[in-house]
Amino acid sequence: MRAAALRTPALVALAPELDHNLRAMARALPGARLRPHVKAHKCTALARAQAALGHSAFTCATLREMEGMAAAGLGDDLLLANEVLDARRLGALDARVGVAVDSVETVAAAAAGGVREVLVDVNVGLPRCGCAPQDAARIAEAARRAGLLVRGVMGYEGHAMLVPERARRAELVAESMQRLREAHAVVGGEVVSAGGTGSFDLNAEATEIQAGSYALMDTAYAALGLPFRPALQVQARVISVAPGYAVADCGLKALGMDHGPPAIDGARVLFCSDEHVSFAPELRVRVGDLVRVWPAHVDPTVAYHETLHVVDGEDVLESWPIDLRGW
Amino acid sequence: MRAAALRTPALVALAPELDHNLRAMARALPGARLRPHVKAHKCTALARAQAALGHSAFTCATLREMEGMAAAGLGDDLLLANEVLDARRLGALDARVGVAVDSVETVAAAAAGGVREVLVDVNVGLPRCGCAPQDAARIAEAARRAGLLVRGVMGYEGHAMLVPERARRAELVAESMQRLREAHAVVGGEVVSAGGTGSFDLNAEATEIQAGSYALMDTAYAALGLPFRPALQVQARVISVAPGYAVADCGLKALGMDHGPPAIDGARVLFCSDEHVSFAPELRVRVGDLVRVWPAHVDPTVAYHETLHVVDGEDVLESWPIDLRGW
Repeated sequence: MRAAALRTPALVALAPELDHNLRAMARALPGARLRPHVKAHKCTALARAQAALGHSAFTCATLREMEGMAAAGLGDDLLLANEVLDARRLGALDARVGVAVDSVETVAAAAAGGVREVLVDVNVGLPRCGCAPQDAARIAEAARRAGLLVRGVMGYEGHAMLVPERARRAELVAESMQRLREAHAVVGGEVVSAGGTGSFDLNAEATEIQAGSYALMDTAYAALGLPFRPALQVQARVISVAPGYAVADCGLKALGMDHGPPAIDGARVLFCSDEHVSFAPELRVRVGDLVRVWPAHVDPTVAYHETLHVVDGEDVLESWPIDLRGW
Repeated sequence: MRAAALRTPALVALAPELDHNLRAMARALPGARLRPHVKAHKCTALARAQAALGHSAFTCATLREMEGMAAAGLGDDLLLANEVLDARRLGALDARVGVAVDSVETVAAAAAGGVREVLVDVNVGLPRCGCAPQDAARIAEAARRAGLLVRGVMGYEGHAMLVPERARRAELVAESMQRLREAHAVVGGEVVSAGGTGSFDLNAEATEIQAGSYALMDTAYAALGLPFRPALQVQARVISVAPGYAVADCGLKALGMDHGPPAIDGARVLFCSDEHVSFAPELRVRVGDLVRVWPAHVDPTVAYHETLHVVDGEDVLESWPIDLRGW
């Protein structure tokens, strides 16, 4: 199939860039050093490509992602890097399953749900989930008392992830990992799980890095100068042309907008509506022309689409279901 | 079923508020005076409730919405208020179908696709689709030459829709409708289709108003002091509590973020991540508590969810599939 024949808006992954990203990361963090985060792409076919490069343990953010990965036969070692109160859906999976815990309530939920393994989630500076480092021993003890295997600790330095200056990012990562090290010393276990695309080569403390965005990238991460290439676009069609601007059929229901509007090469994006992007092109465009839109944030963009088309130049190589959406 | 038993995050419509909104609008704009826009809710069950109150003509933004409405038996009079190049999917529908045209290319596409009726889409001030008023006669003539029935004109005064001051909003609507009136004079036809929730009682020129957001509302529209009540929430569960803040399992993949972060009664929202909202509650919350999150923008919020649960107090009355998603 030709890319031009895709219905618009169409989510497309650029095959050479995607391949470059997967291989570059597999070289930097081979095998179990990377625990790819599937929340960034929500696509078991892409996860399979990551597994083929040697990463057989995965990170998930939702129960649906855990269920979908297990159902796809990618359940060698699945971590729900998030707290959950209804853990029965995890206990029911035919897979090796671990879950983050940061309170006695989430420990109790894991045990009641039939989960067997946990990581103690530690707050390393991002005001989100995770217990205080000084509470980590208590949570680990509660987990062990409940019969759970404590594999180790996790802590996400998300506040560092998009800091533009590398030295400052490194400083924040080091501070965060100092907190995680303290927690690990009292918790024990062989796993120290942390990090993301923005810290993949800065975080020396973690035994495994939970990066996901590196595969497809976006305009926000692209600004950091990482060795990964933007690989995700929405292909849209110009449906209207007026003096000074044009309109294509890719709107804010086809794009994650929390990092701001998307970008179009050779054009200035004016604004997005539900199903439109208005943009001022440098060169003349015509009704019917195709344009490629760069999303500002990959993860919530992917979550709007049913299919990820892998394209190489004008050819669609594969069309992968985005099968891990929802909750 | 009890609302507390819903998996989180769960999209919920408050039955009394939804009912109030549907009835208030049906009184203000009875029958064909309103052409409800389904893009705001993407739910044929909700459209059926609108039809039951007398509105049998509907507005859509996407081909999938048109197909879904026709398949649901709601195809008495469907308008795709948007330009489209591949109109064959419209021509194939078992329904009365009209489409917006604003260029000779979109006229040709409509005719080639087997569509029989069009509205000439006129730019009334929003830099999006729509021909210049002075081009409307030429487009209408091209459509008639192609054998299409020109039902009239449409023009969306979207730039006026969220202007907070009512007098200023009225002024912008009047200016826009002056442009549409001029186009209508040269195009002819019985339909003048325009407007939205923000101008439903200000637009006296349109024969039909394309409002959609009024049914569920959101925090952006709520600021206008309209007679419609916020009726859409995401029910989430507190999964982590720390000194000064808590975290619930409703993130930016469950919310339209283009109008900014959501709101939580009795709390200050700190930020959203993919699957989390961090917030500072006034009163103490506990792990496992339910919280209700008000989305800032209804339309892209709904588009992330599979089901809309209609709740009355603690009871789930109905669970409606959000069956018009995608393209």
